[in-house]
Amino acid sequence: MGIYVLVHGAWHDGTAWSSVVRHLESRGHKVFAPTMAGHGRGAARNVRHADCTNSIVNFIAEHSLSDVILVGHSFAGTVISKVAEAIPERLKRLVFFSAFVLQDGHGLVDEVPPPHAALFAELARDSGDNTIMIPFSIWRESFMNDADLETAKWTYGQLSPEPYEPVREKLDLKKFYSLKIARSYLYCTEDIALPPGEWGWHPRMSSRLGLYRLVQMPGSHEVIYTNPAGLAEKILEAGRD
Amino acid sequence: MGIYVLVHGAWHDGTAWSSVVRHLESRGHKVFAPTMAGHGRGAARNVRHADCTNSIVNFIAEHSLSDVILVGHSFAGTVISKVAEAIPERLKRLVFFSAFVLQDGHGLVDEVPPPHAALFAELARDSGDNTIMIPFSIWRESFMNDADLETAKWTYGQLSPEPYEPVREKLDLKKFYSLKIARSYLYCTEDIALPPGEWGWHPRMSSRLGLYRLVQMPGSHEVIYTNPAGLAEKILEAGRD
Amino acid sequence: MGIYVLVHGAWHDGTAWSSVVRHLESRGHKVFAPTMAGHGRGAARNVRHADCTNSIVNFIAEHSLSDVILVGHSFAGTVISKVAEAIPERLKRLVFFSAFVLQDGHGLVDEVPPPHAALFAELARDSGDNTIMIPFSIWRESFMNDADLETAKWTYGQLSPEPYEPVREKLDLKKFYSLKIARSYLYCTEDIALPPGEWGWHPRMSSRLGLYRLVQMPGSHEVIYTNPAGLAEKILEAGRD
Repeated sequence: MGIYVLVHGAWHDGTAWSSVVRHLESRGHKVFAPTMAGHGRGAARNVRHADCTNSIVNFIAEHSLSDVILVGHSFAGTVISKVAEAIPERLKRLVFFSAFVLQDGHGLVDEVPPPHAALFAELARDSGDNTIMIPFSIWRESFMNDADLETAKWTYGQLSPEPYEPVREKLDLKKFYSLKIARSYLYCTEDIALPPGEWGWHPRMSSRLGLYRLVQMPGSHEVIYTNPAGLAEKILEAGRD
Repeated sequence: MGIYVLVHGAWHDGTAWSSVVRHLESRGHKVFAPTMAGHGRGAARNVRHADCTNSIVNFIAEHSLSDVILVGHSFAGTVISKVAEAIPERLKRLVFFSAFVLQDGHGLVDEVPPPHAALFAELARDSGDNTIMIPFSIWRESFMNDADLETAKWTYGQLSPEPYEPVREKLDLKKFYSLKIARSYLYCTEDIALPPGEWGWHPRMSSRLGLYRLVQMPGSHEVIYTNPAGLAEKILEAGRD
Repeated sequence: MGIYVLVHGAWHDGTAWSSVVRHLESRGHKVFAPTMAGHGRGAARNVRHADCTNSIVNFIAEHSLSDVILVGHSFAGTVISKVAEAIPERLKRLVFFSAFVLQDGHGLVDEVPPPHAALFAELARDSGDNTIMIPFSIWRESFMNDADLETAKWTYGQLSPEPYEPVREKLDLKKFYSLKIARSYLYCTEDIALPPGEWGWHPRMSSRLGLYRLVQMPGSHEVIYTNPAGLAEKILEAGRD
């Protein structure tokens, strides 16, 4: 059975995966969902991208995991790319789940439409602690478009502000683009967290992976909440040999 | 429960929604499906776009409806945009269902591939009364690609000629683009009434809505006939708070 | 009931359709799945595109078939286009199933991304007999992304080397583009044998068909193996009047 390490996206922490973890475990897999530095209630927010990466690198090392299927959601695409550079020998496959696959030298903000990037910068400036909190209206319409209002509200209460620095920093990804680790892209067909088309997730991000496996499912950017059982099945399709 | 006003597309009249209305009512909603001026058997065809809009504006006013979820199919995207300009205070949400979201200053014919626009112009010229009737072969292959031949034929018998003037007229939509009414785009993934890609419905039309909710379902441009129960469920997903 | 002639793609032979044939026959249709010249175990590989076409033309003539619904998978899109030029009077409809619709004067290799074309040329050069065999890693990730590893391996064992000449030859398709035979495009939404986007199957290939019927289903390029029952149903939707 597989060893899965699930890395959460922006505003989330490891607990966002709890239903998905339960489903994967019930299928006999070993599953971990660590929280990155700078994330989760009460964590200090003054982190850099390398701190996020090191959280996962250290977690894998401390648990002596190998043959890891490393899944990154959304922002965590940038993290698992750097984890892959650090410990390629411990990884079996990368699964980019509605995730950023940055061009070498880019930061996340370079890969979103300019008005989004401007909003992030403004939110960070106004935050007082260089964080960004997603406005509820965007969360409800663009991230949870497949949810009812109560679910959208409840899940919004699970979020916490995202450190701005890791989404702003430009990353050297030359080594990542030289790696031969197997990779999959898992895309949800109603995901409009990035606007479909020119700035969309797929095939813009996925096509950067070279030889990759595409897996799709219906749903929004947050099927982690709206369809965790379905997501777990698709993670298995994306992660298997 | 919601108050839904369903606005039919070209060649149709309000009766096209009858199965959808039944499904929505069975879920406890108040549902109306008025027929626009110039549409339906026996109606005078010499109407302008404002006449279509006024049909809906007056219907809503006469029934004293407020908090309306206003759904426009196809051509009716141009109508609900103008209705929203006229009575924004009565509307809760706009649902563009495989619908035109015109650029300011455009008419519908400016938003279809030039050969389609040329065909419309030719049909209008040859009609004798400035109307256009969709040829059966296009209806069967491009509009009802998910139907069997009998359904395609039966539904074709439900159609009547479309006044050309409202699809030709250029519309001032500056106020529409300033409105803050919530909006959704409902797209059917096999809809080829507009050719997918450069001239497609989605994301070309949907992306003009700014912050919007995307809902998708399988099917052709005419799921109103081929899957009314499924359409009703998706209208509820698109229309809820 | 319909008369279906199913034409296999590259690396395959007629036996690839066996489960699909069984499903179609159980629905009461007459179904044939001939193997093209240069294909199948033991066949001489030094064939040209016209030999492939003639296999199908002769098969249809010898069996005195008419009103044929002619289905071509992948490479066989180029073949059914030429068959249509040769015997249009025997055909009722063309179904392009994840298939090439070549521009007039192009060969298949002109319609794939340049790195793919270069790989094909290299494989042919190194083969000793001017054939190309798809590497397993590409088969597993890009062609059978919806399969488990065992299925990917088993099906790989069913393949045989593809003659290079028919995929390289430039074809005159002027007559094809003048024909009025009804046509459908059947596309699988997770098919990445051609990379989605600029070089994708749909709408790039499908849009060349003029007035056509779109049918879609979930799955990879090889639903012929991973979902033959579902494929059979969609072939019927694509093939019916």
